[in-house]
Amino acid sequence: MILADYLRQRIALVDGALKGLVPDEDILPATLHRAMHYSLFAGGKRLRPILLLAACEAAGGKLEWALPAACAVEMVHTYSLIHDDLPAMDDDDFRRGRPTNHRVFGEAGAILAGDALLTQAFLVLADPSLNGGLEPAVALRAACLLARAAGSMGMVGGQIVDMESEGKRVDLPTIEYIHTHKTGAMILAAVQIGAAIGKAGPDAEGSLTRYGEAVGLAFQIADDILDVVGQQDLIGKDVGSDQQRGKATYPGLLGLEQSRDRALELSSMAVAALTVLGSSAEPLRQIAEYAVNRSS
Amino acid sequence: MILADYLRQRIALVDGALKGLVPDEDILPATLHRAMHYSLFAGGKRLRPILLLAACEAAGGKLEWALPAACAVEMVHTYSLIHDDLPAMDDDDFRRGRPTNHRVFGEAGAILAGDALLTQAFLVLADPSLNGGLEPAVALRAACLLARAAGSMGMVGGQIVDMESEGKRVDLPTIEYIHTHKTGAMILAAVQIGAAIGKAGPDAEGSLTRYGEAVGLAFQIADDILDVVGQQDLIGKDVGSDQQRGKATYPGLLGLEQSRDRALELSSMAVAALTVLGSSAEPLRQIAEYAVNRSS
Repeated sequence: MILADYLRQRIALVDGALKGLVPDEDILPATLHRAMHYSLFAGGKRLRPILLLAACEAAGGKLEWALPAACAVEMVHTYSLIHDDLPAMDDDDFRRGRPTNHRVFGEAGAILAGDALLTQAFLVLADPSLNGGLEPAVALRAACLLARAAGSMGMVGGQIVDMESEGKRVDLPTIEYIHTHKTGAMILAAVQIGAAIGKAGPDAEGSLTRYGEAVGLAFQIADDILDVVGQQDLIGKDVGSDQQRGKATYPGLLGLEQSRDRALELSSMAVAALTVLGSSAEPLRQIAEYAVNRSS
Repeated sequence: MILADYLRQRIALVDGALKGLVPDEDILPATLHRAMHYSLFAGGKRLRPILLLAACEAAGGKLEWALPAACAVEMVHTYSLIHDDLPAMDDDDFRRGRPTNHRVFGEAGAILAGDALLTQAFLVLADPSLNGGLEPAVALRAACLLARAAGSMGMVGGQIVDMESEGKRVDLPTIEYIHTHKTGAMILAAVQIGAAIGKAGPDAEGSLTRYGEAVGLAFQIADDILDVVGQQDLIGKDVGSDQQRGKATYPGLLGLEQSRDRALELSSMAVAALTVLGSSAEPLRQIAEYAVNRSS
């Protein structure tokens, strides 16, 4: 398989499904739905939903079983970006080369668009007319994994520690806490939800969990490195912005070379974890390698 | 039954259950969990969880089946208050006589505490170790009702229309939209979730739905009236604050007398809807009367 083609096709698939799972832009209240669409269809990489779909297939499940859950995970990711960009948080004016949500819809609009996207994610999992007819126990398991990864002991917990650490000299355990919670938890949850929907047995589930943990941290270290050495037009934000605002990063603490080594090591661990899964896990293998060798 | 005693006992019951369903204040990240506790245990009336429990019992269900779901609904209500109070929204400094969440924990802390409470609500419904062992199909139905009521076509939708209407002359349909969405939807959902957990048959479910719709709107009109004629020390905020900021209210449009008549009429409709349910619905009856005859 050619990964670039695979990713392009999967992005189109996720984008199409997402359109059917949020209210149209002209449905009242239209401002709110426009604000939700604005950030949801801003050209994201769709990494989390693609991982979720690939994990479902690697576990032996069908792609279409997992499509609504994949969209739910992307909604949660999008809400987190909208709230992270707010003036009270990272105060970012641009995201993926476009003005951030609050720059277009105002702070109140952006806060509410984020709130509504987070809520819509759980509606998509819980509403039988949206979740594609998942068995209740499976849909509930997906909602549980999503809520745990997104909440105070997961993504939101990582975000507050990240905010509290700005401008401070932090140690490696703190950076690992921030990364494994702020981004790692949702990436791991995407893989675990895919495994649950694909009805993975205990071996496959264990294998996919180890994969998700390793690839989540590898991806974030690679992001930190791109913030230092990336090309601005490719990464869609200012190069060096982490350093400017005193963000805790891997390169800031370990230097570039050691950070690259760590990312490559994690990527190899992720690939190694897939051994029991055979050829159905080929997309997951290639994604783990791409995670640390990308330019954006 | 004496309603005041009943409410006091139920508040204690809900408060006790809530403590077991959010991470303790000293669990990391402690700032976040302190911010969640600060607003969750600020002396709320617990109207929504009490209605949920009473609806479950009126439908023939056991109180303890519904306690986690009742707490989930209160978490969503609390998150909505934290976000509504933010400087970008209503910019309120006090709530229930105490500084608002963002005054104590900062804007970023308050936004994240709200996000985490909303997420925790769905975790409580979806995690078998928290939801009291609800059947998956029932737990999923509760999550679906909660998400629909809280999202862009429910509470968040009502909030954005409320914000957009500030300082404008609005008509009765717009005020009804704001009230039925911003507050009514969650009150109705509380009653419907109680009915679902109590395994209400079609008649009881229809009866409780009509009750929930009427009592939700009655409660909000009564709130609007209290904002005009209430005692500041009892309602915990400035009297006349709605008018000052140009909020769309019933008394503002219809006058006090017609608003009182409408609230009483809705309260009677709510009581009438309960006829098929017999004596098990006595608490719901008294709450419908209390909703329009309270002083805070």
